[in-house]
Amino acid sequence: MDSPGGAAAEDQQEFAGRVKSFFESAPPLVDGENVSKKIAGFISRNRGGEADRVVCVTSGGTTVPLEQRCVRYIDNFSSGHRGATSTEYFVKAGYAVIFLHRRGAYQPYCRYLPEDSFLDFFEVTEGSAIRVCESHAKEVTRAIRDYRAAVDGGLLLKVPFTSIFEYLQILQIVAGSMKPLGSFGMFYLAAAVSDFYVPWESMAEHKIQSAGGPLDMRLAPVPKMLSLLRKEWAPMAFCISFKLETDSDILLKKADMALRKYGMHVVVANELSTRKKEVVVVTDTGKVKVRTDEQHREVEEKLIDLLIEQHSHYIEESEKDAVNG
Amino acid sequence: MDSPGGAAAEDQQEFAGRVKSFFESAPPLVDGENVSKKIAGFISRNRGGEADRVVCVTSGGTTVPLEQRCVRYIDNFSSGHRGATSTEYFVKAGYAVIFLHRRGAYQPYCRYLPEDSFLDFFEVTEGSAIRVCESHAKEVTRAIRDYRAAVDGGLLLKVPFTSIFEYLQILQIVAGSMKPLGSFGMFYLAAAVSDFYVPWESMAEHKIQSAGGPLDMRLAPVPKMLSLLRKEWAPMAFCISFKLETDSDILLKKADMALRKYGMHVVVANELSTRKKEVVVVTDTGKVKVRTDEQHREVEEKLIDLLIEQHSHYIEESEKDAVNG
Repeated sequence: MDSPGGAAAEDQQEFAGRVKSFFESAPPLVDGENVSKKIAGFISRNRGGEADRVVCVTSGGTTVPLEQRCVRYIDNFSSGHRGATSTEYFVKAGYAVIFLHRRGAYQPYCRYLPEDSFLDFFEVTEGSAIRVCESHAKEVTRAIRDYRAAVDGGLLLKVPFTSIFEYLQILQIVAGSMKPLGSFGMFYLAAAVSDFYVPWESMAEHKIQSAGGPLDMRLAPVPKMLSLLRKEWAPMAFCISFKLETDSDILLKKADMALRKYGMHVVVANELSTRKKEVVVVTDTGKVKVRTDEQHREVEEKLIDLLIEQHSHYIEESEKDAVNG
Repeated sequence: MDSPGGAAAEDQQEFAGRVKSFFESAPPLVDGENVSKKIAGFISRNRGGEADRVVCVTSGGTTVPLEQRCVRYIDNFSSGHRGATSTEYFVKAGYAVIFLHRRGAYQPYCRYLPEDSFLDFFEVTEGSAIRVCESHAKEVTRAIRDYRAAVDGGLLLKVPFTSIFEYLQILQIVAGSMKPLGSFGMFYLAAAVSDFYVPWESMAEHKIQSAGGPLDMRLAPVPKMLSLLRKEWAPMAFCISFKLETDSDILLKKADMALRKYGMHVVVANELSTRKKEVVVVTDTGKVKVRTDEQHREVEEKLIDLLIEQHSHYIEESEKDAVNG
């Protein structure tokens, strides 16, 4: 919770210091200029076009390198299933989606397919043609068709990350490019972001040697960039964050706290064991439970419907404010 | 280095204690009976058949869970490229391969293809047929054909793992099944195995909370199971382990040490930055540098040739010993 009165300014200064030292400690983004160009191009092509709404869906876990020449790292578990699924429903609803995802996590339009290897779906005929195996023909054909339609229609841009450094650097770039969209922009922050990191400077240059007994590590907390996103990077965008806990007792409390502390418009609360069937949408007007049912086998279908409704309402209110203000 | 004289017995007892507590602390292997059956079936189908030699190729990094309901874990970086590539050359040479790999790491026969998503290789024609995009036609067709041939020919069994617990449990099962093969069995241990772990019992049940400042962790060293593999699990198998370092100064010294300490037949030494072009094959008769050249674009091609030669020699010597003994 934020400290009241006089302590707040001090807290803010301390926070700014931690943000600065995080970004200063980050290794430069590889091919950063190109990444920026691609993102800016995608948004400007969509702005004012058919898809006037753009959502940045973040997905998968970030890693924290423990060594500069990275052999070992701490990873946050996340299959990326939520983000990949949600991306499909956003595209279906006409949103342009920047899919900011962990390399190797689930991808939109290939969630039904066995994860192991796509080689299992195909066979080579005697005439050296490729044929989809009978058993997978339907899903594979639909997956390829829907994927092609999204990409060729300019509604899907995939941007990969691995480390917490890459993730936050790219998120800042995306937010900067989306700022001009005002309330038509949305952030759907489903990525599992590391809470702790090892500052690059203090990291071992070479591989940590295992010869001598137990290993002790001290990790610094990652500054919570959600407040920055809301206050500076893209203040008008509609922001949805996720809260995942394994302990249901503290889940809703923490979701409420995140809503207030970071100024989110929505926090989606989910418990690890039931997350594919049920989530709770927490806003400052209340809590709505969203569950799968006979007609909606994927909880994301109803969730995205509800969020789009809330986004539309938010856009209306913002436009009114602009007229009245 | 091993302690001399009287201390050795004590060391061994301490080691046995650490092994015991590692396996006792491990969560039970999911679907373990089925995994055992598949492995035993694969080996018995190949035993005395056309592929009388069986190699277990391990590939990719293992993870160390930090929480029982795993959200965070420490990961060892390894793309699994070496293991996937080597598997193809072993199959080509007529070995039956148990490919014990990290879920999501590189797979044999799809190493050339962009990692992102197989959906990019295909298009749907107007008649709803699937067609490989012109740009990838050659690689995709070859990949599917070679993969099918390996699987249908019974020369490739893929077994996935994620955590260090799963990896070592399955490795023990494979070794037990391969023991009867004697010197015809080979272990090619290219996986990047964690050096440290958090004992399951002492692990946080719920997600570690990030509220309070820095995070301190203490990890226990993973007992080196290589000695067990050599002495107990499959004492006659030909064993190759890998040593990866970022610091070339200590690489060869450590490779030599591993050779003696764990009784490996071969240690393949590689440096992180040059590992795709050059490795050093270390045995007790000397060191051989293996490098890519015009005819051999992949260092694994020459490496596997050399190792198979050494394996053949080892089989001959073992048979002589058996006759003379």
